[in-house]
Amino acid sequence: MSEMIWFNGEVLPLAEARIGVEDRGFQFADGVYEVIRFYNGRTFTLSEHLDRLTRSCEGIRLAMPLKKQELMREIGKFIEKSPVREGMIYLQITRGPAPRNHIFAPSRPTVLFYARPLPPVAPAGTAEGLKLISQNDERWQRCWIKSIALLPNVLAKNAAVSAGCDEAVFVEKGIVTECSASNFFAVAGGKVLTHPVGPKVLPGITRLVLMDLCKQLDVPFVERAISEAECLAADEVFITSTTREIGWVARWNDRQIGNGSCGVITRKIHGAYQKLVTERTQ
Amino acid sequence: MSEMIWFNGEVLPLAEARIGVEDRGFQFADGVYEVIRFYNGRTFTLSEHLDRLTRSCEGIRLAMPLKKQELMREIGKFIEKSPVREGMIYLQITRGPAPRNHIFAPSRPTVLFYARPLPPVAPAGTAEGLKLISQNDERWQRCWIKSIALLPNVLAKNAAVSAGCDEAVFVEKGIVTECSASNFFAVAGGKVLTHPVGPKVLPGITRLVLMDLCKQLDVPFVERAISEAECLAADEVFITSTTREIGWVARWNDRQIGNGSCGVITRKIHGAYQKLVTERTQ
Repeated sequence: MSEMIWFNGEVLPLAEARIGVEDRGFQFADGVYEVIRFYNGRTFTLSEHLDRLTRSCEGIRLAMPLKKQELMREIGKFIEKSPVREGMIYLQITRGPAPRNHIFAPSRPTVLFYARPLPPVAPAGTAEGLKLISQNDERWQRCWIKSIALLPNVLAKNAAVSAGCDEAVFVEKGIVTECSASNFFAVAGGKVLTHPVGPKVLPGITRLVLMDLCKQLDVPFVERAISEAECLAADEVFITSTTREIGWVARWNDRQIGNGSCGVITRKIHGAYQKLVTERTQ
Repeated sequence: MSEMIWFNGEVLPLAEARIGVEDRGFQFADGVYEVIRFYNGRTFTLSEHLDRLTRSCEGIRLAMPLKKQELMREIGKFIEKSPVREGMIYLQITRGPAPRNHIFAPSRPTVLFYARPLPPVAPAGTAEGLKLISQNDERWQRCWIKSIALLPNVLAKNAAVSAGCDEAVFVEKGIVTECSASNFFAVAGGKVLTHPVGPKVLPGITRLVLMDLCKQLDVPFVERAISEAECLAADEVFITSTTREIGWVARWNDRQIGNGSCGVITRKIHGAYQKLVTERTQ
């Protein structure tokens, strides 16, 4: 069975969904996106993702072409028919096709989503530790918008991979902001530290869930600017994203973090996260 | 006759050129572009544009899919067959289609260009003056790459248009860098002042031509950081781009620039520019 896509209201084979060359998503990166995880055929935190999508659309002055409830229903129907049970929904909205001009003209937005299988995430603490490398944060000042203008992230991620690492950590004037495709956390003195969301930090949905879990687990969750030096000396470091959940960091700029194994707090939080996923989706 | 496009080596109607949804240009803004002006069916500064394209490709770690000479020949053949005599070539290269992942995988780049008519630019000094408005420069730090990650530029341009202006001037900590789709110049004390190219300033081709013309005209051309306050008090202000050539600025943030008419140096430079265009293309 060929891979399917929901494309401007129709469901068709992914390979048959074609974009004109003057789609503003292709010429101007004039669009936003979301990646939503589903487990056992059920989405996790779909509502939160669509709320963020709404804010991203506002951030680029694009009216949401579908109401949140409609989008939830369409995604639900799509997954039901999909052979994929464990995976992600990739969803993208662009301002649509218009003769090339920076200036907005009336256009019908392009809306699409499709499912892609993902391997199960290893139980908390059992995966191999990740290797990070610092990259100068040269991105724009509205990283709270989940836009498709991802070239800076792509370049940073590939610089990390070229250096034999898994992920790039953005550092701006000595302060750690986030990673190329994940949020960043350090654990020091029993507290979870992370940069506040804003110009350089996306309001991650996994990050949001974690804030709640930390409250429940009685782990202090502190949002403040943290320096690279402070992070390198932290007891534990981990990163979060929808597809990765929580990934513990073993090495950073070729230095070992903590004792080189998954820290107790990281493991505890990830365990609680996976328990929540199971409760909501099994 | 329908509008044609050169699309991955074939010439076909523009409407028939279709991109897959997983083209990295559509999902990651992973691509670069050029806009090349032609007059009387002849390109102007094509070689300079393709040299910049080569540097942009290097900037995003993409091997140029065609040699410069091939691209020049193909563009030449295309314009020869095109009914458009006065216009621009829009050229875009992306890393091409690949299953969505930040990490580079082997992919065949997407290469395309097409022609679009443009109205003739008014003779030097005869157009209406432009209105500018300042915008905080929130773009990334590699603006010397002419990438399709144009969302920040699009948002700035549309903020300007919403405020009844023609163009947005980026200002970073009080320093004027460039505009959303043009380079920026102030004239003070008989000198032309502009910010050096680099993290926040694209090496504009019209800007490049101007440097040469200023030398010939014996007008000092000074590259240095200039403050917004200094620019607002300048004798003349103008902006340059391939499609616009040289546009004189009448108002900025609702203040009159100079005496509110096109300045003598702007007019002189634009006149020399148009003379050069005529020499090379008529």
